[in-house]
Amino acid sequence: MANIEQCITDCLDCHSVCLSTISHCLAKGGDHAATHHIRLLQDCAQICMTSADFMLRGSPLDQMICRICGGVCELCADECAKMADDDAMVLCAETCRRCGKSCGEMAGADRKAA
Amino acid sequence: MANIEQCITDCLDCHSVCLSTISHCLAKGGDHAATHHIRLLQDCAQICMTSADFMLRGSPLDQMICRICGGVCELCADECAKMADDDAMVLCAETCRRCGKSCGEMAGADRKAA
Amino acid sequence: MANIEQCITDCLDCHSVCLSTISHCLAKGGDHAATHHIRLLQDCAQICMTSADFMLRGSPLDQMICRICGGVCELCADECAKMADDDAMVLCAETCRRCGKSCGEMAGADRKAA
Amino acid sequence: MANIEQCITDCLDCHSVCLSTISHCLAKGGDHAATHHIRLLQDCAQICMTSADFMLRGSPLDQMICRICGGVCELCADECAKMADDDAMVLCAETCRRCGKSCGEMAGADRKAA
Repeated sequence: MANIEQCITDCLDCHSVCLSTISHCLAKGGDHAATHHIRLLQDCAQICMTSADFMLRGSPLDQMICRICGGVCELCADECAKMADDDAMVLCAETCRRCGKSCGEMAGADRKAA
Repeated sequence: MANIEQCITDCLDCHSVCLSTISHCLAKGGDHAATHHIRLLQDCAQICMTSADFMLRGSPLDQMICRICGGVCELCADECAKMADDDAMVLCAETCRRCGKSCGEMAGADRKAA
Repeated sequence: MANIEQCITDCLDCHSVCLSTISHCLAKGGDHAATHHIRLLQDCAQICMTSADFMLRGSPLDQMICRICGGVCELCADECAKMADDDAMVLCAETCRRCGKSCGEMAGADRKAA
Repeated sequence: MANIEQCITDCLDCHSVCLSTISHCLAKGGDHAATHHIRLLQDCAQICMTSADFMLRGSPLDQMICRICGGVCELCADECAKMADDDAMVLCAETCRRCGKSCGEMAGADRKAA
């Protein structure tokens, strides 16, 4: 069942992990610092923050943003999961996956009191 | 035809006008300061910034965000247009409408080089 | 002693509480919805997010932002504490106070590894 | 003389140019994609947006944020100016320098009506 407090927490966590993972990836260089990879982490960090903020405001548009956010998180999780020999990427993949699932549930939930 | 530079400009303008309109509405009070009205202006300001940033990064996900952004802008334009005896609200409605149209075109455009 | 992980958590908490308190204040109306009060909550929410993000990136400029952020949090705590007959404002005041203290410690700390 | 509308425009421009320069730098790789360089562009993009938003809200705290923002812009201008054989970096350096000057003037200005 969708839980808005949990979804806010998952979005803030995902925002945080994506941002710190960007600095990790830049320091590693190579594939980790590829434009499309860093950009996806930036996209994910920003849409997670946006999604959290819509929920925190009690916006009636939160499910629309959560649907998009969930999709971006899944893409980011897929990308990070390809670098499974790096603990930081595994953590990022898991955090994105959890947020993607949480946002997907919010997006599909019956209208809840905000 | 969709023009990404124009759409970025429209999103930044809409972000700016929505933010300054919030302070205007709070100062006026009454219907202008109703929760759902201020919240919609906050939502619109934030999604416009998010949308501009996705385009500025050259993200391949920009059309997905522009589609959502365009929808929020149209809702905000409709709300602001109801207060047509207030010049600040007319300006806000027009700015949101222009951004909504611009984002709608971006969202529906053939894939452009980023 | 300054703890960067704790300070990030405090900034994210303060961002979240300020944002949801804005909607609470708009719904209550009256003094709660005064322009200067809502604006200070907006300022506090945004500088807390900015401060958290600088720390999450491992930026060498984090202490500069924490100093400013701590100051804004203290101002916001003072304002919210004036409405002590409202549980939501008490919670907001306490959260801002904690973040203000945490940011003040970070700002004054010896240079830590980021 | 400080001009708040000009300063808002300069901050939004600087935010935009820094964000698109990040993608340019990642694509180039090498020194352009060094962690400290990308991070400074991220820091500059974010503080410029924050600064613009404080001014757009009419916040009485805008000069405090402009002072910090001006400092970050100057640092970023210095860094980008080191890569003077790349037109994108020259543009970024000039944009940061202009914003740094504009924010410095705002920060030092007599209190203006907001």
